Amino acid sequence: MPLTDPDRLLPVEESQRSLARDLYDSVADAPILSPHGHCDPRWFGENARFPNPAELFVVPDHYVFRMLVSQGVPMADLGVPRVDGGPVETDPRTIWRRFAAGAHLLRGTPSAMWLDHSFEHVFGLTEPLSPATADAQFDHIEDCLGRPEFRPRALFERFGIEALATTEGALDDLRWHRMIAESGWRGRVITTYRPDAVIDPEFEGFADNVAQLGALTGEDTASWKGYLDAHRARRAFFRQHGATATDHGHPTARTEDMGTADAAALFDKVLRGACTPEEAEAFRGQMLTEMARMSLEDGMVMQLHAGSWRNHSRTVFETHGRDKGFDIPRPTDFVGNLKPLLDAVGMNADLTVILFTLDETTYGRELAPLAGAYPALRLGPPWWFFDSYEGIRRYREITTETCGFYNTVGFNDDTRAFCSIPARHDVARRADCAYLATLVRTGRLREAEAFEVAQDLTHRLARKAYRL
Amino acid sequence: MPLTDPDRLLPVEESQRSLARDLYDSVADAPILSPHGHCDPRWFGENARFPNPAELFVVPDHYVFRMLVSQGVPMADLGVPRVDGGPVETDPRTIWRRFAAGAHLLRGTPSAMWLDHSFEHVFGLTEPLSPATADAQFDHIEDCLGRPEFRPRALFERFGIEALATTEGALDDLRWHRMIAESGWRGRVITTYRPDAVIDPEFEGFADNVAQLGALTGEDTASWKGYLDAHRARRAFFRQHGATATDHGHPTARTEDMGTADAAALFDKVLRGACTPEEAEAFRGQMLTEMARMSLEDGMVMQLHAGSWRNHSRTVFETHGRDKGFDIPRPTDFVGNLKPLLDAVGMNADLTVILFTLDETTYGRELAPLAGAYPALRLGPPWWFFDSYEGIRRYREITTETCGFYNTVGFNDDTRAFCSIPARHDVARRADCAYLATLVRTGRLREAEAFEVAQDLTHRLARKAYRL
Amino acid sequence: MPLTDPDRLLPVEESQRSLARDLYDSVADAPILSPHGHCDPRWFGENARFPNPAELFVVPDHYVFRMLVSQGVPMADLGVPRVDGGPVETDPRTIWRRFAAGAHLLRGTPSAMWLDHSFEHVFGLTEPLSPATADAQFDHIEDCLGRPEFRPRALFERFGIEALATTEGALDDLRWHRMIAESGWRGRVITTYRPDAVIDPEFEGFADNVAQLGALTGEDTASWKGYLDAHRARRAFFRQHGATATDHGHPTARTEDMGTADAAALFDKVLRGACTPEEAEAFRGQMLTEMARMSLEDGMVMQLHAGSWRNHSRTVFETHGRDKGFDIPRPTDFVGNLKPLLDAVGMNADLTVILFTLDETTYGRELAPLAGAYPALRLGPPWWFFDSYEGIRRYREITTETCGFYNTVGFNDDTRAFCSIPARHDVARRADCAYLATLVRTGRLREAEAFEVAQDLTHRLARKAYRL
Repeated sequence: MPLTDPDRLLPVEESQRSLARDLYDSVADAPILSPHGHCDPRWFGENARFPNPAELFVVPDHYVFRMLVSQGVPMADLGVPRVDGGPVETDPRTIWRRFAAGAHLLRGTPSAMWLDHSFEHVFGLTEPLSPATADAQFDHIEDCLGRPEFRPRALFERFGIEALATTEGALDDLRWHRMIAESGWRGRVITTYRPDAVIDPEFEGFADNVAQLGALTGEDTASWKGYLDAHRARRAFFRQHGATATDHGHPTARTEDMGTADAAALFDKVLRGACTPEEAEAFRGQMLTEMARMSLEDGMVMQLHAGSWRNHSRTVFETHGRDKGFDIPRPTDFVGNLKPLLDAVGMNADLTVILFTLDETTYGRELAPLAGAYPALRLGPPWWFFDSYEGIRRYREITTETCGFYNTVGFNDDTRAFCSIPARHDVARRADCAYLATLVRTGRLREAEAFEVAQDLTHRLARKAYRL
Repeated sequence: MPLTDPDRLLPVEESQRSLARDLYDSVADAPILSPHGHCDPRWFGENARFPNPAELFVVPDHYVFRMLVSQGVPMADLGVPRVDGGPVETDPRTIWRRFAAGAHLLRGTPSAMWLDHSFEHVFGLTEPLSPATADAQFDHIEDCLGRPEFRPRALFERFGIEALATTEGALDDLRWHRMIAESGWRGRVITTYRPDAVIDPEFEGFADNVAQLGALTGEDTASWKGYLDAHRARRAFFRQHGATATDHGHPTARTEDMGTADAAALFDKVLRGACTPEEAEAFRGQMLTEMARMSLEDGMVMQLHAGSWRNHSRTVFETHGRDKGFDIPRPTDFVGNLKPLLDAVGMNADLTVILFTLDETTYGRELAPLAGAYPALRLGPPWWFFDSYEGIRRYREITTETCGFYNTVGFNDDTRAFCSIPARHDVARRADCAYLATLVRTGRLREAEAFEVAQDLTHRLARKAYRL
Repeated sequence: MPLTDPDRLLPVEESQRSLARDLYDSVADAPILSPHGHCDPRWFGENARFPNPAELFVVPDHYVFRMLVSQGVPMADLGVPRVDGGPVETDPRTIWRRFAAGAHLLRGTPSAMWLDHSFEHVFGLTEPLSPATADAQFDHIEDCLGRPEFRPRALFERFGIEALATTEGALDDLRWHRMIAESGWRGRVITTYRPDAVIDPEFEGFADNVAQLGALTGEDTASWKGYLDAHRARRAFFRQHGATATDHGHPTARTEDMGTADAAALFDKVLRGACTPEEAEAFRGQMLTEMARMSLEDGMVMQLHAGSWRNHSRTVFETHGRDKGFDIPRPTDFVGNLKPLLDAVGMNADLTVILFTLDETTYGRELAPLAGAYPALRLGPPWWFFDSYEGIRRYREITTETCGFYNTVGFNDDTRAFCSIPARHDVARRADCAYLATLVRTGRLREAEAFEVAQDLTHRLARKAYRL
């Protein structure tokens, strides 16, 4: 028996299932476009072997380890590094066994499905992970990782990835992207401009970061004009390394459109570290509109990931740092917050701003109505907690009736877990085909249209929206 | 092959589908009650021919043209008039071709379904709209429109409309309703009292509007008492033209219940144009409670449409004016906001206040619990972005368990697009019958009850709630 | 024909239904764990007969009578007592007939399903309630109630209840629980510590309640330390009567973690009745964190029921008092509000805090992400308006993908309606099995896992979470 059901995620009723299967078959082998994610470009630059099963599947994947933590397993016991460099578990086999002991905690989650898919399709395993199978699976994966066909570039090619975007901070030297380019390898790994650390006055070391931005670009980043020009320069540098997009992780979707004098005065204030939280918020908001204007100059697509309370647990943040599964969504207002930016540039069809949300209530109430009206707006795919079967289903059911398919941009895997990329795209393709089959069988879409839309959702919309 | 699937929107599984079909057949030909909408009464007064296909299907329907705009088609290219009278496309065939070129953008939306239904059932077309069929369809519809059986009154009768309510401002002279009444034609076209322009201090020309209200009624609308009496007089005038209901489009559901002295003082302030936004909001809130009290005097049903940020795009509002598809929903609080009104009159079973929302999160959390308790409250059908198959499904699944069927009021089409009325009611009937069949097949409703409820949802509840 | 469909609530498609039926059969007869509810312990202490059908099914059940009230039936006509002792209907048969006359209002609601289940499975009735059957049903139930096998203890045993928790205020003398213990009857009826009346400064008679708390415990409850020690003493007293849990019904999920001096100062203020609403809110918030700390001392599980606007109608509250179906949910913030408590004790796996919500938007956005990360948090089952088929379905579909099954705690019936307990657990078991069968048939869970999870959801998780 295979680890994964060949008809998984397709509708159960036979007339729907057979159509959904046909639709899925028509896109199953389409190339993977991964225009937003967090893979490490070093993997493809150095093309070294992945260290071991625990480092591949457990330690870096907060989807997985947070679930064990939520049931009382200390993070350190799973090998997650401490900020103070204090002791954590380092034996990969011990970590793997702890992971296997908690595998049942993932039942019914997308992680379980992604893991099964990776185990079976990437590593050829045939038994579910459990305490009984843990050691054998560890040995098997360990053995695979030593072989050339499991090196990062080989897997990239085997996965059928047409383009993969990583995400780097504005101060990054992009050395790994340069190394990839200079290596002669033909895999398309591009960067994305993520300037949060030089835009968010509340980011650790903000003023130093801005100074470093000046040093890198030769601009006087102590002045508002020089600061903006430094962004222009870095954006150009990122474009030289393949970037077609910027990305902005902000606590809210707040935007502003101040006059130059006000913006410059606010910039002085935030740079001196003298701003209130409200002023920090306003500055981030102003910068979104500035970034949108620069996008009109240089053609970069703009992504906004808003609405997460990062590092919610003080204890976890102090002990283990950022990105440890304790980023929790909050209600997000797009209608009021985006108005300044939209009044400035929202009716311009040359601009593309892609909106992501962790607050599903905004799909139908705010995002689909906005994306179904403003030419500059597109609606990004279900993000994070919602890039799952039910998440994708709700997304399509709630947004399509208001903004259609063509104001959406295909799928993002948004992952740090390289081996899960095919699994995640496979889930999205199946969920989309299930939805399309249901539309056809309930007389809401013609069958020929469904086959066209399936191609659109799988690759065409991503290629177009991200200008790939 | 027909343009529309005869079993569209019914459940796919056969035992559900066959019951749903039987339920649908039992209500498919029931009369149409349209107790809330925005058709132009002039159509039925003058009974002139509709000008052309573009003016019938594209130019006035912001559901349709906003989707093309969202993908970069300028509004002016679709014939939408400019506020300054500047040039816009005037050739109906050109507009129609642009519409056809973007028809795929509507895939999966209710507009696509309504259009197909109108094309097939009203105009007898058999091919989907596309660039290839655009000209022939234009010619065909154009030809139809010249024939007597496509005049407004003929269509009204053919559609099986038992009663159609239009919506007029408080200052309207209702001449078209008078013309209809005096014409001897038996179609029941009634008006609805919509006093926003004389109630909302932030409406363009508010003070002038109130003065005009005084002139029309002979009341001293510079005094609070005279202002209220002027409303009483206009309500009576509207009732003489068939009105059984009032309608209130407010940004929020805020209500107030001040003493007379406070209300009079606030009225003075808003009339002088000296009020803050908060006072404007309070005044609108006070007037909702006053309207409810008048409804207890004169028996008019009260409708509240709250929660839309009207004219969100400054550019679009300045260039093309109101109602251009850029009204965007916001989170809406009913529990706190309605309390003053409910404490005043909410336990009175002689009053009917019908609540609409664009914030689906309030269905289960606020509206169904409120409507399932207060005798004066009823829950209006899914509104605007949500009068769609998925919208109706979510509405029934979320509200029925808490407030049952009998605290809801049947369907509203709420449309300016006359030819879409049968299509919209057909969608609602199918969606309701699909829901009822599912209840029966999962043991939550007896089959005989389902047939009764189907009649209730199709016409009885609307007739009763709107006192038609 | 039976009153209830043997396959009710199971999926309709046959391959799903047959698996769901097998899953259901495997848990249908499992013992009932009822770790949170509002049954009257006196029933089991005295074991007297239930007075009559109206007192059993209508008068105490606000789910039922509010629906009749919402359609204009005066509460007094249904026998609901008045605060002022004024006249209300007292003839049970008259009340029963009024109930029967409005039985159709409950169509499609969980109440209809619970009533049918109770009528059929508890009382052996075979006809639906209607005006035509009302008298015969009344007579039949009345006759049953006189028989020994319909006494409370006999029904408790017949229902297969393994443990039933009632809920008592901090000042309760727990006499009925003592009577049960001393009676030698082996039914496990335990209490729960619900200290709202001595924690909420806005509760009627708060200062007197706190004084009484001092008198009962011998502590000086005029001091912060004595007040906390008095809680410790009462918690110990409740544990002697079986309590394993506390329960907190707060308007919001606000928590605080002040220093001792600040907390003591605030306590002085609230005790003097000198606090603002904001200070009352802060005090309640501080006490949640204090209660969590005491739970770490004494091992009691902590339940938080937040987000209801209690007694929304002033008229109903003044005339008929609390708990009359006019408690209306509001938007609830867990992410910001719980942070102080979570920073204090949230990473402690020895603590269990169970969160309930009436705001379904928080399931996916806040509660599942929080429960899927913090070891101290568990997510309670769908509460109140949502302990229904659709409510349970949405709960599973939205939460499972993010926090899995093992951060949830099984089902609560939370009822005052004793005879509905088997019906409610039956609905939950069927809804859960329907969900599990769907997961299996769509390749998201292995069949053997589904049978295990079915046991977990039915009894194991409740036993573990509530330490029963």
